[in-house]
Amino acid sequence: MMNRNTRATLRLLTPFFNPRRNPSLLPSTPHFDENWWHSQTNIAHGEHRVSSLFNPLRFSVKNQQMGVGISTGIQHKCYASMPGLVQRNPRFSELNDDDVRYFQEILGQKNVVQDEEKLSTVNTDWMHKYKGSSKLLLQPWNTDQVSQILKYCNSRSLAVVPQGGNTGLVGGSVPVFDEVIVSLSSMNKIISFDKVSGILVCEAGCILENIISFLDNEGFIMPLDLGAKGSCQIGGNVSTNAGGLRLVRYGSLHGSVLGVEAVLADGTVLDMLKTLRKDNTGYDLKHLFIGSEGSLGIVTKVAILTPPKLSSVNVALLACKDYNCCQKLLQEAKRKLGEILSAFEFLDSQSMNLVINHLEGARNPLPTLHDFYVLIETTGSDESSDKQKLEAFLLHSMENELISDGVLAQDINQASSFWRLREGITEALMRVGAVYKYDLSIPLENLYNLVEEMRSRLGNAANVVGYGHLGDGNLHLNISVPQYDDKILSQIEPFVYEWTSKHNGSISAEHGLGLMKANEILYSKSLETVQLMASIKSLLDPNHILNPYKVLPHSLNA
Amino acid sequence: MMNRNTRATLRLLTPFFNPRRNPSLLPSTPHFDENWWHSQTNIAHGEHRVSSLFNPLRFSVKNQQMGVGISTGIQHKCYASMPGLVQRNPRFSELNDDDVRYFQEILGQKNVVQDEEKLSTVNTDWMHKYKGSSKLLLQPWNTDQVSQILKYCNSRSLAVVPQGGNTGLVGGSVPVFDEVIVSLSSMNKIISFDKVSGILVCEAGCILENIISFLDNEGFIMPLDLGAKGSCQIGGNVSTNAGGLRLVRYGSLHGSVLGVEAVLADGTVLDMLKTLRKDNTGYDLKHLFIGSEGSLGIVTKVAILTPPKLSSVNVALLACKDYNCCQKLLQEAKRKLGEILSAFEFLDSQSMNLVINHLEGARNPLPTLHDFYVLIETTGSDESSDKQKLEAFLLHSMENELISDGVLAQDINQASSFWRLREGITEALMRVGAVYKYDLSIPLENLYNLVEEMRSRLGNAANVVGYGHLGDGNLHLNISVPQYDDKILSQIEPFVYEWTSKHNGSISAEHGLGLMKANEILYSKSLETVQLMASIKSLLDPNHILNPYKVLPHSLNA
Repeated sequence: MMNRNTRATLRLLTPFFNPRRNPSLLPSTPHFDENWWHSQTNIAHGEHRVSSLFNPLRFSVKNQQMGVGISTGIQHKCYASMPGLVQRNPRFSELNDDDVRYFQEILGQKNVVQDEEKLSTVNTDWMHKYKGSSKLLLQPWNTDQVSQILKYCNSRSLAVVPQGGNTGLVGGSVPVFDEVIVSLSSMNKIISFDKVSGILVCEAGCILENIISFLDNEGFIMPLDLGAKGSCQIGGNVSTNAGGLRLVRYGSLHGSVLGVEAVLADGTVLDMLKTLRKDNTGYDLKHLFIGSEGSLGIVTKVAILTPPKLSSVNVALLACKDYNCCQKLLQEAKRKLGEILSAFEFLDSQSMNLVINHLEGARNPLPTLHDFYVLIETTGSDESSDKQKLEAFLLHSMENELISDGVLAQDINQASSFWRLREGITEALMRVGAVYKYDLSIPLENLYNLVEEMRSRLGNAANVVGYGHLGDGNLHLNISVPQYDDKILSQIEPFVYEWTSKHNGSISAEHGLGLMKANEILYSKSLETVQLMASIKSLLDPNHILNPYKVLPHSLNA
Repeated sequence: MMNRNTRATLRLLTPFFNPRRNPSLLPSTPHFDENWWHSQTNIAHGEHRVSSLFNPLRFSVKNQQMGVGISTGIQHKCYASMPGLVQRNPRFSELNDDDVRYFQEILGQKNVVQDEEKLSTVNTDWMHKYKGSSKLLLQPWNTDQVSQILKYCNSRSLAVVPQGGNTGLVGGSVPVFDEVIVSLSSMNKIISFDKVSGILVCEAGCILENIISFLDNEGFIMPLDLGAKGSCQIGGNVSTNAGGLRLVRYGSLHGSVLGVEAVLADGTVLDMLKTLRKDNTGYDLKHLFIGSEGSLGIVTKVAILTPPKLSSVNVALLACKDYNCCQKLLQEAKRKLGEILSAFEFLDSQSMNLVINHLEGARNPLPTLHDFYVLIETTGSDESSDKQKLEAFLLHSMENELISDGVLAQDINQASSFWRLREGITEALMRVGAVYKYDLSIPLENLYNLVEEMRSRLGNAANVVGYGHLGDGNLHLNISVPQYDDKILSQIEPFVYEWTSKHNGSISAEHGLGLMKANEILYSKSLETVQLMASIKSLLDPNHILNPYKVLPHSLNA
């Protein structure tokens, strides 16, 4: 396996944003203004029908305008959207000594952590972008303990943030204020593996890379792979519907996760841990917990279908003269490589320049610079026929001028070095300065237009780079600047969200909404759908204790 | 393409079961007894925790014992479970002339059907097993009309059954009593197709085979294929999470359906019609409508990811000396054929005998009779390398005595004739007499044990046959008898459900629950999960007008 584990070792030194430290930035509680939203979204979403059914019980629609979906005039130092607009929900209790004693009784002293240094780590996301002020970290080691914790917190109205590997990029896995942190790290056992069906059952705290190693020994692979695999946990992956590098081949977790065990806010354990490929008995509720970012329940166990490991892996780095060629190449690859295509990634020349100039040991294997690069990986069961197929495809693409140049890795080291170019972009960007990061799905034909528009919009003020999982229509738009600058931010947002919405894209392809984009959800989802989400949130978590301030607009989520 | 469209032309002449004609069979309204259920399910499900949170608002838990999950002493003539125990919900209004006039205003006269002959067809399922007594068929041709219909029905408490191609096997698509039938057949337009991404958007009433033909012309295929494709509609496929013949390769609809438009009971249109491979913005609510059998909303549009058509298709029919060899062969096929495996079906000698003796033109291409047969299909992008791979796999399997004999189709006619043996079983069974049909998921190692146990349980009274989608762990257990016999039925049920539950299987792999198995859901799902389903049903459809009496236990669904 190639080592793509770079994310976990990165550290970025930027000032924390802690709303508690900046009380002057906090406005009064925001309210949601339907009329305002309708006036803003008619172009992007077409006519919205207003539903009266799903006005969730727990909030009222008022006529005060607030910044749902737009930047306001309030200045804040974090990269993107508005954690600065959130204020602590006064309905949540504050932790007291009795609470701590209760948790110690359930978990034992050492799993109830109050040590400041340890708390500092779990209060902070890996990018050092978000920082909470929780005073308590709980480390349960079984489902029953998770259930007891939540039942108690629910009865006491103590807010909770579930935490896996804490590798998220949108502030979803750390407290916003003083939420109790429930870490799943101690629940890290593999429960069973069936070699005939390839079905694995494990606890939520298993680190992805450990599962990958376990499966490798058994002759199987995970249908999921991503840069953070050395730290991220399967429970977090499922809760955030992680995408990554193999989605083009193996699809999303909604397809490969067969079962989930989840604990609801009141402590109810939902046993949906089926290990069956097919099960049409009632509503498939596990999907509610895939991608809801811990806001509907805590995932404690996962059953997942894993494909057999195939022996033949090939990696090629190709140059394209323009974005149109990248698109056409993808279309050809899907047809000509068909069943063996396992990755189709792209990067522009700006991304390549960053990597080769700022990442130690990174080298462009192609002699001249090109405007676009595509990394193709194939995985199959037969070395010679796969190679033959890939070579024929490359020859055909050269003849048709879809690719201007290219190189096929001759061994695993070369393959790793090609992957390093693609995966090192994040690290390279961080070495250069501050970065505004956007993770977008955009229909292919328009995908790169956003990068170009952003470039002409910002001029010399920023270095705009575009790369990502082209095979899935997933653009990582990154805007590199010497330092964070609210003037630049106001040129980026809400433009980037409006543009994405107008082109029928998604403002979060794979990173989720977390705290960063909770208020932007209406750029990607209809009002009626979001209102139904809020009703479901209230049904499953009536006191809204689970991962508060995240995923849904703050006006619907209090 | 091979023609596997046999189901739509079949007709079975068995007496209808109409609860209205047998009022003496109707008991008083059933209630759900939690204590009873716990006493019954401790072995199968382990200890259940009782939740107080999800006692749905709309029903009360009482101490009257009823037949949730068991056969009662009440005799009825239909194949399996207990539509006879349902009584018409008295809260539903009866249709009046004003209602009809209102619908005529919305839809025009010709789309409001009261003709008895036409009503007879849509009141009856294709097996002639279930028959309702609806007096009204509505044929909307756009989403807005569906919305107006439901809004009106909801305000009037008129019960509704959504109907697609009416090819279901569990009584889900026909009325139980006098529900208004809303047919999606007139909403049959393909809205868009993107040749680069392979994403199709269409209306719910599109017949699956028409979509397949459309895509074929564009060089793509549907990730879904099933016997009923000539009649079934994509909206029904999505609403029932149809499985079929390509699931082993392309996964379930939860993976390939990218977006859905659905109309809720109150007429709210939920626009979740995304055409993106990745979209992590909030809860992915479309999954609630995939497989909920029209009980949470009516699916009106679907966006689906379609794979490119690959040029090389091979089909082999193989003989195995025992079930163990079938299992091992599957394991080998997954590894050796890996990415090109597109079907792995099995049938036992009893199934083969039925087909060759009762289906015109069916012929076993192997000279002697064997205990088990496996049909393998591969689909890939390169004819010669695929064939080479398949031949090597077959040779290896022969050498290892996993297969005793086998034949590889030399042309499309031979391939079709092999498929006919597998797909003709249903038709052959119906020619012989009455059939009790079960569609089960069972972990592979135990899958065929059920067939053998059932065989020894029933002795000479019945011909028990086992076949199905072995690659997905999906057994079709069919019990052929000269005529329906309650004594035999009582030997089959609840044994078949108890056995399946004990072995961690699912009592419905792909057919859904419908009316037939609504009361059996607790054999496959935990009590807490079913209670949450009922709460979600009440949230989305507070008056329970959508497809009543189905999917959820009758005690939770009134």
